[in-house]
Amino acid sequence: MTTETAPEPWRDPRLPVAERVRDLVARMTTREKVAQLSGIWVGMDSGGEVAPHQHDFAHDPPDWDALVPHGVGQLTRAFGTRPVDPEIGARGLARTQEEIVARGRFGIPAVVHEECLTGLAAWQATVYPAPLCWGASFDPDLVGRMAFRIGETMRALGVHQGLAPVLDVARDLRWGRIEETIGEDPYLVGTIGAAYVAGLESAGIVATLKHFAGYSASKAGRNLAPVSVGPRELADVLLPPFEHALRAGARSVMNSYTDLDGLPAAADPGLLTTLLRERYGFSGTVVSDYFSVAFLHALHNVATGPADAAGQALTAGIDVELPTVDCYGSPLVAALADGGIDESLVDRALHRVLTQKFELGLLDPGWSPHPAGTELDDAESRALARELAERSVVLLSNTGALPLRSGVRLAVVGPRADEPGAMLGCYSFPMHVGVHHPDVRFGLDVPTVAEALRESFDVTFAAGCGVTGGTDTDLAAAVEAAAAADVCVAVLGDRAGLFGGGTSGEGCDAADLRLPGRQEELLEAVLATGTPVVLVLLSGRPYELSRQVERLAAVVCGFYPGEEGAAALAGVLTGRVEPSGRLPVSFPAAGASQPSTYLGAAPAARSDVSSVDPTPLFPFGHGLAYHPATWVSVTGATAWPADGSCRVSVTLHNPHGTATSEVVQVYLHDPVAEVARPLRQLIAAPRVALPPGQTRVVHLDLHADLASYTGRAGDRIVDTGAVELLVGPSSAVAHTVLALPITGARRVVGFDRVLQPRVTVVPG
Amino acid sequence: MTTETAPEPWRDPRLPVAERVRDLVARMTTREKVAQLSGIWVGMDSGGEVAPHQHDFAHDPPDWDALVPHGVGQLTRAFGTRPVDPEIGARGLARTQEEIVARGRFGIPAVVHEECLTGLAAWQATVYPAPLCWGASFDPDLVGRMAFRIGETMRALGVHQGLAPVLDVARDLRWGRIEETIGEDPYLVGTIGAAYVAGLESAGIVATLKHFAGYSASKAGRNLAPVSVGPRELADVLLPPFEHALRAGARSVMNSYTDLDGLPAAADPGLLTTLLRERYGFSGTVVSDYFSVAFLHALHNVATGPADAAGQALTAGIDVELPTVDCYGSPLVAALADGGIDESLVDRALHRVLTQKFELGLLDPGWSPHPAGTELDDAESRALARELAERSVVLLSNTGALPLRSGVRLAVVGPRADEPGAMLGCYSFPMHVGVHHPDVRFGLDVPTVAEALRESFDVTFAAGCGVTGGTDTDLAAAVEAAAAADVCVAVLGDRAGLFGGGTSGEGCDAADLRLPGRQEELLEAVLATGTPVVLVLLSGRPYELSRQVERLAAVVCGFYPGEEGAAALAGVLTGRVEPSGRLPVSFPAAGASQPSTYLGAAPAARSDVSSVDPTPLFPFGHGLAYHPATWVSVTGATAWPADGSCRVSVTLHNPHGTATSEVVQVYLHDPVAEVARPLRQLIAAPRVALPPGQTRVVHLDLHADLASYTGRAGDRIVDTGAVELLVGPSSAVAHTVLALPITGARRVVGFDRVLQPRVTVVPG
Repeated sequence: MTTETAPEPWRDPRLPVAERVRDLVARMTTREKVAQLSGIWVGMDSGGEVAPHQHDFAHDPPDWDALVPHGVGQLTRAFGTRPVDPEIGARGLARTQEEIVARGRFGIPAVVHEECLTGLAAWQATVYPAPLCWGASFDPDLVGRMAFRIGETMRALGVHQGLAPVLDVARDLRWGRIEETIGEDPYLVGTIGAAYVAGLESAGIVATLKHFAGYSASKAGRNLAPVSVGPRELADVLLPPFEHALRAGARSVMNSYTDLDGLPAAADPGLLTTLLRERYGFSGTVVSDYFSVAFLHALHNVATGPADAAGQALTAGIDVELPTVDCYGSPLVAALADGGIDESLVDRALHRVLTQKFELGLLDPGWSPHPAGTELDDAESRALARELAERSVVLLSNTGALPLRSGVRLAVVGPRADEPGAMLGCYSFPMHVGVHHPDVRFGLDVPTVAEALRESFDVTFAAGCGVTGGTDTDLAAAVEAAAAADVCVAVLGDRAGLFGGGTSGEGCDAADLRLPGRQEELLEAVLATGTPVVLVLLSGRPYELSRQVERLAAVVCGFYPGEEGAAALAGVLTGRVEPSGRLPVSFPAAGASQPSTYLGAAPAARSDVSSVDPTPLFPFGHGLAYHPATWVSVTGATAWPADGSCRVSVTLHNPHGTATSEVVQVYLHDPVAEVARPLRQLIAAPRVALPPGQTRVVHLDLHADLASYTGRAGDRIVDTGAVELLVGPSSAVAHTVLALPITGARRVVGFDRVLQPRVTVVPG
Repeated sequence: MTTETAPEPWRDPRLPVAERVRDLVARMTTREKVAQLSGIWVGMDSGGEVAPHQHDFAHDPPDWDALVPHGVGQLTRAFGTRPVDPEIGARGLARTQEEIVARGRFGIPAVVHEECLTGLAAWQATVYPAPLCWGASFDPDLVGRMAFRIGETMRALGVHQGLAPVLDVARDLRWGRIEETIGEDPYLVGTIGAAYVAGLESAGIVATLKHFAGYSASKAGRNLAPVSVGPRELADVLLPPFEHALRAGARSVMNSYTDLDGLPAAADPGLLTTLLRERYGFSGTVVSDYFSVAFLHALHNVATGPADAAGQALTAGIDVELPTVDCYGSPLVAALADGGIDESLVDRALHRVLTQKFELGLLDPGWSPHPAGTELDDAESRALARELAERSVVLLSNTGALPLRSGVRLAVVGPRADEPGAMLGCYSFPMHVGVHHPDVRFGLDVPTVAEALRESFDVTFAAGCGVTGGTDTDLAAAVEAAAAADVCVAVLGDRAGLFGGGTSGEGCDAADLRLPGRQEELLEAVLATGTPVVLVLLSGRPYELSRQVERLAAVVCGFYPGEEGAAALAGVLTGRVEPSGRLPVSFPAAGASQPSTYLGAAPAARSDVSSVDPTPLFPFGHGLAYHPATWVSVTGATAWPADGSCRVSVTLHNPHGTATSEVVQVYLHDPVAEVARPLRQLIAAPRVALPPGQTRVVHLDLHADLASYTGRAGDRIVDTGAVELLVGPSSAVAHTVLALPITGARRVVGFDRVLQPRVTVVPG
């Protein structure tokens, strides 16, 4: 008779995760528990050797040898601190995980997280278009496919969690992080953001929703400035994208740096626990934005020091301190020892962290830190990057200069025309980290607009000025080039950067929306030559173009289209690619008074009460095509049951011999509501492909939940009574206005409400 | 035996008002009740004949003969529609009251209200400095004396209620009504506002606090745009001035036009009833801002029509519809008849209205509509206007060019240099109504800066440009004048107006803070001559001066100093008047990113998190003197009991042979609080006169209630622990920082909290 020793319950993969977690927690010391609740920011040398990283904002680098025996909750940005060959990096990371497993009593691997907003922020990894481009594509399926491919890449390198997407709704275009947002409309941000989440999570990567909540509404668009929105604006504008994305399966949430009406998000149990856990039913992990636990003390002045900050953050619901062990390290251990913080708070967070580690399989027998390995920036990834870039270019205006006729002599001017960095957003490796490594910065092929145009045209290039500086001589050279050309393509815009290192990006806020530096002067100078000027904007935000727009032959907006962006832009300029992007953010008119989005309520939009007219130059949803679809008809139901759907059917025809597409935009207008509501608000926006000569009928089944809003009592309601559906190709153009009543009984709706229309496209 | 008939109880002045009101209400028909709840906007011809007035925003003028037999709640702006001799006007008004009394069943006179922000807004009445000047004076006593004199004037003409002061705290300098605010600090606005209220009420006039609440925080500073502040910002920034002013005895409150987080103030019972009545204990009348009941339907889209708007406004707590009968007329009567609105709502409002009429003595035997009559713009009024103007001029910078040396040849340039309207704010008669009557517009002597300087200097005048327009020829003339002079005084700024009629004033919002029109160009042109340039700003808001300030010989800010402002400014320029004003609003630095006040919380002020630095060019509280006081010492207690006071003593010396003054400013800084708080916030600011050669000791007994703020639970608390008191001559200069703990037990404080320090000034 042999006796087989039963494994400890936590090691038994046949047991429910909850049971395994309970068992494991019971075996851990306080220090071991706490160690699971923070990251260690590590760097990697070119040989893949991992070591703690010293960051400007942080204290001394953590003492690796003292910490590791207790365990490591997360490893922070192993790929995101220095250029390291991904293959070598993945092996180095695996060795580090082996060390963590070997030296800890329980052998719990770390969760490895990385930035991945425009693709994995690692050297040589594909840089996809930035989020404003995702919004401009109005193409959640494609964004989802991109995110899935990003996730596959991450998983193949041994990364578990990605710090994306950004779900902040653009509120003030001066904010430097506008480029990281998907747009100014909650439905668009939620729809595209949820698709990104679903894609990333399908690849097994934990998606992290940021920044919960309010960040984008900081005063004057200054980074980290106070946010003072009321509960209704929070509920109706800022939170819905998080609801979309949580329903899509996101397993992590990151707090906003900002205080909301005085209370920093990292210390707000109402936000992180009552709303997120109890109301939304979220069961994943809440991770802190980098240093934001310490900021409770150092920036917001609501904590007496690191221990107090740790206690407040744990109480609020921050489970994991990122990027590195600071407040959740020895200050927390000491406070637990002297009773200042209750260990049950640690246990609560620990349960969530370990549950996720179990669910990721990190504690299953047979788990191996050695990833599959992958080719970064392969043809499949580049093809996705190209496809999304092509679908996101927005043709804002065109007097007929575009597409460029073959054989024209081009002057290509502007500081963004021949610069690979012009294509990339601030959270890409080259712009985020690579700037410190100029020799190897890009590590991949990022063509410029000038290069791409040279493939088809005789091109004379002259920068004319820098993004922020420039000499008269440079300017004169650009003018000379423009004067001698048939058409001048001026490529202007931003340099993405961090904390003042750019004109757009985190910490790179704008005081106004004039083009940076001498770029407007350059534009005026080339316009003065009389040569038709096509403006291409590569920027992290809209700029004020009102003084020039009438004189420009065409305006093309690319935002940051990623490494394949130049080909996409050249494709649009030459006509090879049909322009199909639509604006996810309004371009402001003269004065560019901010904040101002298309979601303005009625009094704000009245021109007779204020001398400042908020009407934009190019409205939300606007975008031209070379081969526009014909709107044949819009028909709809005559009543809308409060607990059901109404159908709107749009018939579109493509009379051209070339494929085109349309974004069918449905906006809701409520003539009488309990509260002042936006004059129009997007509730559906399917992108519809139209093959040459064909007709499509788009059926939109719109649930009345889409008309819900936060009423006077603070509940989200479907109100009855008359509403209007404005159906057309932009927020400013309604081909048809359908007036119909919402019938039946007023309803209160919750987190489980219908967030999306059902869309059916059939040949017509 | 004779039987004497007892008077009806409501006629008996010996009975308590409540009893009289109860009796009268019981006798009234529904139509008679409703008639008391609105105004009729009347105009007056030059003979003093009163007739209903047709306003742009209104429907047809009300039918006088149909309405009057039921009674008239208020008469609107009898003096404020056309230039009419005040004496004749007062007699006309009295005749109208006699008609109202004679034709009504109960003979209830109307309450007559008028605008009176910068003095009674009637033709020929003294125009005092605008509220920004009141703030700049830091002199509540003087403002109180002004308000008392304004009130005396009004009473002498038969007016009962004045629609002032404006207690909105400046939040965004782009807002056109910044000129009507007292400044950007709640303590300053509250202190000065309360003094105005006390003065006006002492004269027997009902002061009307406006706009309750939130108006100044509209998005992007656009008039009537949505306000989305959270409850804490509302409680700690926007409401305190109303608390000050209610405690000073204000008997009426006017709602804000705006919606607050979606709910229009006119439909918000939480604001107008729960907060104002139940929490603050207010028992006076709430009157609607003009047309704002109708705007519930027409602008905010929260009411189905006039009757619904009336019902919502009555429910919320709007007792009187102004300016004229609209929703509270036949729509209300019909809704009462069909049961759509409960008559108890009418009775509630009526009780308040009649109580006020009884308290005003309008229903006492012997009441006469015939006022005492008065001389408008008499010497006493002008002297007060002069004194306040002199105390409010702010010397922002001075390289030594000021005071002007006698005998210098002056070029006086700028569109505001020789224009009487430049001295006056938008709520003065000449700028509000008089613009439509150019021939008789001013009706009083309003000297210009150029005229005042001509009394002492050889002056060459050239406007250079208009406020918004101007030709190259005009510009050249100004440059020529400047080049030929020893000193150039450039007088630039705004034209006050309404709804686009000006560059500042109601509806005259700015997209940015550049000087309007070609004025910056003019400034650069005269600077280029090499002649020292003294800039005098006559404007309704601060402007961005960062590009010129280093090259300007001096900058003097007058805001709108009123009809005696030119003498005050000339006094400062020549040195006859010692400059003593201090900025009630910050002057922004380059970029002028808005909103931005000195009350920024910690993260917003960090230069390492945003590339936009909110540090102002000239900070709140800043102002230079020719003969500055010497700060000898600042001493203070070492502990601050949470339920008591601490004493701070400041010794000031005047080493000069001429009188001077100082504003002793005490700012609170809280290193650790429950919520993110302003880096510094004003809690005391006595203006101290310093005779030549003398020393004064200023004792400030600061109650800990002054350190209270709205904590996490939503209560206003006095928190214990370390605080700092920054004591100095501006918000940016602390001569001494006193660090001390608030000791004892944390307290919750209410409406009855201490709002003011006790200040004692003794010879030293």
